[in-house]
Amino acid sequence: MTEALDFQSLIMALEKFWADNGCLIWQPYHTEVGAGTMNPATSLRVLGPEPWNVGYVEPSIRPDDGRYGENPNRFYQHTQYQVILKPDPGNPQELYLKSLEALGIDPALQDIRFVEDNWKSPALGAWGLGWEVWLNGLEITQFTYFQQSGGQSLDPVSVEITYGLDRIAMALQGVRDFKNIRWNDNFSYGDVQLQSEQQFSKYAFELADVDNMRELYRIYEEEANRCLKAGLVLPAHDYVLKCSHTFNLLDTRGAVGVTERAGYFRRMRDLSRNVADAYLEERQLMEFPWLDKTSQEGSGEEKVSSASFPSKPAPFVLEIGTEELPHGDIEDALQQLEKKVSEALENLRLDYEGLEILATPRRLVVKIAKLADRQEDLEQTVKGPPQERAYDEDGKPTRAAEGFASSKGVSVNDLEIHEIDGGKYVVAVEKKTGLSAHEVLTAAIPDIIKSIRFGQSMRWNDPALAFSRPIRWLLALHGEASVHFSFAGLTSGPFTRGLRFINGGQEIAVGSVQDYLAVLEEQGILLDQNQRQQRIKNDLDTLAATVDGVVSEDQSLLTEVTHLVEAPTALLGKFDPEFLDLPREVLISVMKKHQRYFPVEKDDQLLPNFITIANKKSAENEFPEMPVITEGNADVILARFADAKYFVKADLEKKLADYIPALNLLTFQVDLGSMGDKTKRIRNLVDELASMLDLSDEDLSTSRRAAELCKADLATQMVVEMTSLQGVMGYYYAKNSGEDEATAAAIREHYLPASAGDPAPKTKAGLVVGLADRLDSLAGLFAAGLAPTGSKDPFAQRRAALGLVGNLISWDLDLDLAKALDQAISELPIKMEPETRDACLLFISDRLHNYLREQGYAHDVVDAVVAVQGKDPASAFRAVKILTERIKDKNWKDTLDSFARCVRITRDLKETHSVDKTLFKEKSETDLFEAVQKADEELLSGGDLDRFFALFDPLIPLITAFFDNVLVMDEDLALRENRLGLLQIIASFPESILDLTRLESF
Amino acid sequence: MTEALDFQSLIMALEKFWADNGCLIWQPYHTEVGAGTMNPATSLRVLGPEPWNVGYVEPSIRPDDGRYGENPNRFYQHTQYQVILKPDPGNPQELYLKSLEALGIDPALQDIRFVEDNWKSPALGAWGLGWEVWLNGLEITQFTYFQQSGGQSLDPVSVEITYGLDRIAMALQGVRDFKNIRWNDNFSYGDVQLQSEQQFSKYAFELADVDNMRELYRIYEEEANRCLKAGLVLPAHDYVLKCSHTFNLLDTRGAVGVTERAGYFRRMRDLSRNVADAYLEERQLMEFPWLDKTSQEGSGEEKVSSASFPSKPAPFVLEIGTEELPHGDIEDALQQLEKKVSEALENLRLDYEGLEILATPRRLVVKIAKLADRQEDLEQTVKGPPQERAYDEDGKPTRAAEGFASSKGVSVNDLEIHEIDGGKYVVAVEKKTGLSAHEVLTAAIPDIIKSIRFGQSMRWNDPALAFSRPIRWLLALHGEASVHFSFAGLTSGPFTRGLRFINGGQEIAVGSVQDYLAVLEEQGILLDQNQRQQRIKNDLDTLAATVDGVVSEDQSLLTEVTHLVEAPTALLGKFDPEFLDLPREVLISVMKKHQRYFPVEKDDQLLPNFITIANKKSAENEFPEMPVITEGNADVILARFADAKYFVKADLEKKLADYIPALNLLTFQVDLGSMGDKTKRIRNLVDELASMLDLSDEDLSTSRRAAELCKADLATQMVVEMTSLQGVMGYYYAKNSGEDEATAAAIREHYLPASAGDPAPKTKAGLVVGLADRLDSLAGLFAAGLAPTGSKDPFAQRRAALGLVGNLISWDLDLDLAKALDQAISELPIKMEPETRDACLLFISDRLHNYLREQGYAHDVVDAVVAVQGKDPASAFRAVKILTERIKDKNWKDTLDSFARCVRITRDLKETHSVDKTLFKEKSETDLFEAVQKADEELLSGGDLDRFFALFDPLIPLITAFFDNVLVMDEDLALRENRLGLLQIIASFPESILDLTRLESF
Repeated sequence: MTEALDFQSLIMALEKFWADNGCLIWQPYHTEVGAGTMNPATSLRVLGPEPWNVGYVEPSIRPDDGRYGENPNRFYQHTQYQVILKPDPGNPQELYLKSLEALGIDPALQDIRFVEDNWKSPALGAWGLGWEVWLNGLEITQFTYFQQSGGQSLDPVSVEITYGLDRIAMALQGVRDFKNIRWNDNFSYGDVQLQSEQQFSKYAFELADVDNMRELYRIYEEEANRCLKAGLVLPAHDYVLKCSHTFNLLDTRGAVGVTERAGYFRRMRDLSRNVADAYLEERQLMEFPWLDKTSQEGSGEEKVSSASFPSKPAPFVLEIGTEELPHGDIEDALQQLEKKVSEALENLRLDYEGLEILATPRRLVVKIAKLADRQEDLEQTVKGPPQERAYDEDGKPTRAAEGFASSKGVSVNDLEIHEIDGGKYVVAVEKKTGLSAHEVLTAAIPDIIKSIRFGQSMRWNDPALAFSRPIRWLLALHGEASVHFSFAGLTSGPFTRGLRFINGGQEIAVGSVQDYLAVLEEQGILLDQNQRQQRIKNDLDTLAATVDGVVSEDQSLLTEVTHLVEAPTALLGKFDPEFLDLPREVLISVMKKHQRYFPVEKDDQLLPNFITIANKKSAENEFPEMPVITEGNADVILARFADAKYFVKADLEKKLADYIPALNLLTFQVDLGSMGDKTKRIRNLVDELASMLDLSDEDLSTSRRAAELCKADLATQMVVEMTSLQGVMGYYYAKNSGEDEATAAAIREHYLPASAGDPAPKTKAGLVVGLADRLDSLAGLFAAGLAPTGSKDPFAQRRAALGLVGNLISWDLDLDLAKALDQAISELPIKMEPETRDACLLFISDRLHNYLREQGYAHDVVDAVVAVQGKDPASAFRAVKILTERIKDKNWKDTLDSFARCVRITRDLKETHSVDKTLFKEKSETDLFEAVQKADEELLSGGDLDRFFALFDPLIPLITAFFDNVLVMDEDLALRENRLGLLQIIASFPESILDLTRLESF
Repeated sequence: MTEALDFQSLIMALEKFWADNGCLIWQPYHTEVGAGTMNPATSLRVLGPEPWNVGYVEPSIRPDDGRYGENPNRFYQHTQYQVILKPDPGNPQELYLKSLEALGIDPALQDIRFVEDNWKSPALGAWGLGWEVWLNGLEITQFTYFQQSGGQSLDPVSVEITYGLDRIAMALQGVRDFKNIRWNDNFSYGDVQLQSEQQFSKYAFELADVDNMRELYRIYEEEANRCLKAGLVLPAHDYVLKCSHTFNLLDTRGAVGVTERAGYFRRMRDLSRNVADAYLEERQLMEFPWLDKTSQEGSGEEKVSSASFPSKPAPFVLEIGTEELPHGDIEDALQQLEKKVSEALENLRLDYEGLEILATPRRLVVKIAKLADRQEDLEQTVKGPPQERAYDEDGKPTRAAEGFASSKGVSVNDLEIHEIDGGKYVVAVEKKTGLSAHEVLTAAIPDIIKSIRFGQSMRWNDPALAFSRPIRWLLALHGEASVHFSFAGLTSGPFTRGLRFINGGQEIAVGSVQDYLAVLEEQGILLDQNQRQQRIKNDLDTLAATVDGVVSEDQSLLTEVTHLVEAPTALLGKFDPEFLDLPREVLISVMKKHQRYFPVEKDDQLLPNFITIANKKSAENEFPEMPVITEGNADVILARFADAKYFVKADLEKKLADYIPALNLLTFQVDLGSMGDKTKRIRNLVDELASMLDLSDEDLSTSRRAAELCKADLATQMVVEMTSLQGVMGYYYAKNSGEDEATAAAIREHYLPASAGDPAPKTKAGLVVGLADRLDSLAGLFAAGLAPTGSKDPFAQRRAALGLVGNLISWDLDLDLAKALDQAISELPIKMEPETRDACLLFISDRLHNYLREQGYAHDVVDAVVAVQGKDPASAFRAVKILTERIKDKNWKDTLDSFARCVRITRDLKETHSVDKTLFKEKSETDLFEAVQKADEELLSGGDLDRFFALFDPLIPLITAFFDNVLVMDEDLALRENRLGLLQIIASFPESILDLTRLESF
């Protein structure tokens, strides 16, 4: 290999490559942008029908990536090279790979991967599907099929390729710190950029004046709107970019709270949308002048096969060749294809044996060991008119019979008489001769492909067609013949493609199904996902054993990785053991989540190793030396760990408590103040809840301290960087600051459950702080008029309420949420209307309702309980369980009936009647009354549903006797009202526990 | 020639060229900049000692150049390519010309010129000297030796090359409208930039909210200072750039007044200075880490001549080869060299004949027909000690004599006795043998070159050496031998260089003075400036005659053009006659001032032609066809006329009066309000002045209208573009708006005199409006605390006061400026303290003083008059004339003596004594008193100096008689005081006219 290109030559090589490939070469934008996408040459030009191919450098400024020049891989300003190909040229991945070759990267020697990445920019109202491109685990490019920009659906779709030039340079030049990148012969990247990194980082993190920045944002937004009003699209867009950069500065200063952020995003998105609308309108008025600009054309050559179709059952294979599919989509496709193919074959009357659905990231394959060469013939009896109408008195066929025969394509003489449902009818026996398999498959295959549904699908060359990722080739072989069909602008042919980079991604002709399978095997591709997974699993174990370690099971990661490679090759990498000082969660999170590496452990301790699965040909049980790839991957993880270490080190320079003041700079929500304010409210609320929940002194003291510290880690760099570590870092930092284990644990646990499936807190302090936090959020956001509406829940209040409910149930702790919420409300800096308070309580009890329903309890049972006990989840849960059991009891009907008789006769009464014992005439009246009075008193003194039933059951015979012996609706008004009064007591008996009338059986 | 490069290829070619020549390739800056200079890669990196070679594209944004995409040559955003070479590589012009060749420009076929241009950026505190590079009259590049940045003197100096890419593309591709530049195969410049031009122009001229922009400026400035305080140089610089762009927007919106502008510039300059200081300090702390970066080295080869020096007088030539010298500097050098060379030769005792000093823009030449081969021998008599001390009584030389002889290098026996000034002294006769000419010239030539002084000089490779422009080669021949000397890092040698672009600018060896002259002639260079000027003059006449026209004499332009070319070739171009509709001043101003073309006229009307003088070889009386050059020049003028036409057309869409409201947006000065406010004050003041000046009704009415309209053209685009046309355009627009000739003329003339040498207004209305304008400015600016101090006069108040004085004198109109100023003060929106008012009046009378002195009047005469009549310039002027004449009169001494006697005896008196006629004792007392009383009364009724003398002369004999006959200082107090009282009357007699005591002869 010749010497690696220096940084500026890298750029010049890309400019030349893309200019030679028909791109207009553009320049960086003249205001700060976070990415090349924001340059109007992308964000606006991708709109509308006009073709546009462009390439340009974009120094991209992301203040919160600033690291004072100290981190080897993260910087305030990085440099992108941005390419837009509109429309999709049909081979954008191949063009891209060629551009890498132009940079001196030989794809055959490296592990280059397209790893699912779904991009979206809330500020631009834009999204797209595609990949991160990984070079030995290092993300070097974002490759996206742009689906929407400025809220506009794009037609045609644009291909967006964004090179991370700094990373490419580091990988090419083999340097581990951006500062050491050679820029040209004399200067390094650090020479010319380090001062800038140091100073702009300091400015963004420490110095930018928050009030000034807010004022800038206001002005920029105002000017953007002024421009829009005057129809000035480009100046408006310019101001949107300025808004975005100013927002980034505010954010980096830690001055944007969670709820405020949503507001900023909404405003920027609205602006972007208006800009996009205005741009399109303008181009339309100009009649889309670029529509006649030449653009690249696909080759479109016909692929003909000369082999003849089989005349007996033969093997069949259908290969849908795609760009790299997301792992989840592969799972979806496997399930659906299994079903759809078998259904289709049955409908088509094609016999088959040995159907297998196989998939790799680049191909979905239907393989059939034996598929009939033609459809089965069909004999079908069709009912015609009744016999008496089909033949006249002379037995001659009538016109009705003739018409029927003709419509069925049979001679009238061939009609038969059958007895159907007790009547006699003329029937025709239709015979259909089966068509050849290839005829029906030609029509059927496109429908099958089209019917596959994905969680998120995309368009590329056909606005009416969406799929997980673009389909780039189609192969269907029956025996030795190619089944000809067209789909997605492609024509099927007897060609497959091998593993990427082996023989340059050229098509490979295959003459038969056997041939096809042999070709893939020869390329090292394991087509069968199960086989692939098993191979990986074995290799993980074997490789881990070489360092005396094991790989813990993680089925989800294993499945994902299985779908990331066609030819799995496990490689064992190592990292500097010094990083083992980092919290385990951080290390695992980086390895698994960011890199899809498998951590290696020994005795529950992480080893300084990882295993990555490369997409390279290798034989089973062989672990080839691929040092370039292994070291590349190790470098990436080193970079990520170094980043984390940088944060943790910086964070540890202060005690956790020292971060509390910084919370005052972090807005929670404009009306509700800062996170500092919120922390104070949580702290106060903990005291109130403690008395409601009978906390021990020890728990109370722990809860108080944990409440003070619970949000402090939000101001630490590690959490700012990886929000998912909130609480986790709090735990570590608390311990490092000398807090006791209980307090640290409570800080960590107060977020639990953080997502569905998470357990409840194990410590009572964690529980209490979490309750306080959630009560404060719910009360506050409702009071601020930010209650969730419809499907919108930007502040995750559903999750908060559900956590509240779930934790109380898990701990089986009774708490009157109405009282607790009122306490939370009393802490708020703003007023809350009683109706809003009630709406908030209803919102919580609705979550309780859902929770119980999801546990499988009957909706009427849940209704009956929640209607009354909605404010006490634990108690409600117990009641639901009891009631559910009770309903299964054989005596239940009696119980309910007895109660129902009392309710039905009294429920329309306008007033409650008092009962005068002296008015009773019958003993059964007196007996019932006395029993009821006693039971009522006992229940009033406390009791749950079990107690209720225990008290109610003895009443049942008395109620029956009462109705048997007493005429409630006596003509004597006094008598009547007295009796009704008695029944009213019974009807209201369970009213503090449940509402039995809501049961379906009531 | 192959097809011209498209726009993007142009850029890529430059990147490659400069990368190949050792430059680091950089990227455009991420905030709006007006030029590549503002990118920190230039404005900061040029500071300090570290080497730095860089090239980058810079899309440059200049809001006030926006033309809504309608003008073919002006745009909101143009594209520069910026190169910095630090230090000067020694051949930057040659490198630059090679880069043009890399773009496909063949310099041999074009007229490429380096035209003096002194660049400065007030906002960056930066300046440099260099050139505009012209390609056939089109400015395509700025080439500057950067002398200062951020207020810091640069050492080493940087070479800054700024390509105007759009213009180069237009010239290369032969298109006349930027919109038609091919960007790549599919897109034109207009395709991708027109919308942006239209919209950003509209935003900047019509939409940007002035209050918001001012607030942005405030915030940016505050953040810049915040950054500086924290030592963050680069973020601070970033904010300075944002200030600058915001200022440009405000300016384009017409929201920055003349005086406000100075304030903005000062603030930006201060910021830039602080940024520069901080940057340097920072680099120093880092110990200038780039000092060891390799940079290009000069070849530095020795140039040896083998010819031997002449042994008898021989021709001599010295050629100082330079980069293109400014025309004014050539004139300066010619004069100084004549004097310095002849002085030097005399001092060196080198005989010479036929000294000529010759110059072209690229060479200063000393030519001597015959120069001695050696110095004359010297015999010099040196005086020693007196004879009596030199010899003892025995006549033997003393030690004093011996010491003297030895110090002079003679034997004591060779001492002689000479009589000097009446005494006898020992003398020695020193004999010095002349050295060879080349020996003394080697030492003397550098001193001669170094001694030349220029109005503005620059440094390039030696911090201690300044010259007009860099010296690049040195030739000195004496006979056939090269006189060896070193200067400015160069060594002299027998080599000259020819006309640029002929044989690639290589050195040409010359063997003798004859040879040298022949080489230049062969190249078409006319070395003799007079010959060159005559050739141009003849060619102008001859060529103009071909279109039946003439070229009006303009010696200043002729001299300039003579110094712009070495080989003059006149080319006749034409332009579309439609442009003749433009005001004549506009056309002439564009042709002469911008392009150095000669306009062609017939019967005082412009013809649609121009003559340009190219720098190309041609024979005398030959006008070669050079269509590329002629058409190139014609295109340039077309572009400039189109620009003017665009403005005038736009301006004429409204009447002149319609621009008055826009004056309210144009700040005159913060405290004094807008130009609209000023206009109202002028209008009011005109009424007051009218009554003081006895205006006719007609003049008054004209003055009033002219006052209303006088500033309206400041809001028109043509004047915003070329401020020097203020008044001129007002005249045209007024006429076009239906105003009468008198009003239009007054609008034009109220600015007169606009500069020294200008006439006063011809119309009274023009005079009056001009007076009002100046009175308002002076009163206002003094009141606002902005009086000029020391040498600082940013608002040109000296010129205003001088105009006031000069115009009143020219018109011989009496006006009490104190009264007039009080009127102006009464109109001001702010208060003026009495002391300030007096200071303002004093400032005006000081100008009157200077004015009169410059007319040649004696200072005491001027003093005597101005002390009393400083507030009435016309009257003062008359008095000075009369007094000057009077002083020449033979009786003047009597007159003054008589007056002086009266003054001297009374001037120390504390009180004024009354005169009681009855106390007179002598007739001469009574006679004098009666005569004085009568004269005083007559003078009181009005009169000038003539009248004063007419009245005073008859008093002289009476005064003489009085002193002869009367003892003033009588012992009787009453008598004495009575007599003194009489003399006091005489002493105070001229006090309203002049102060005779200030005369020197008093």
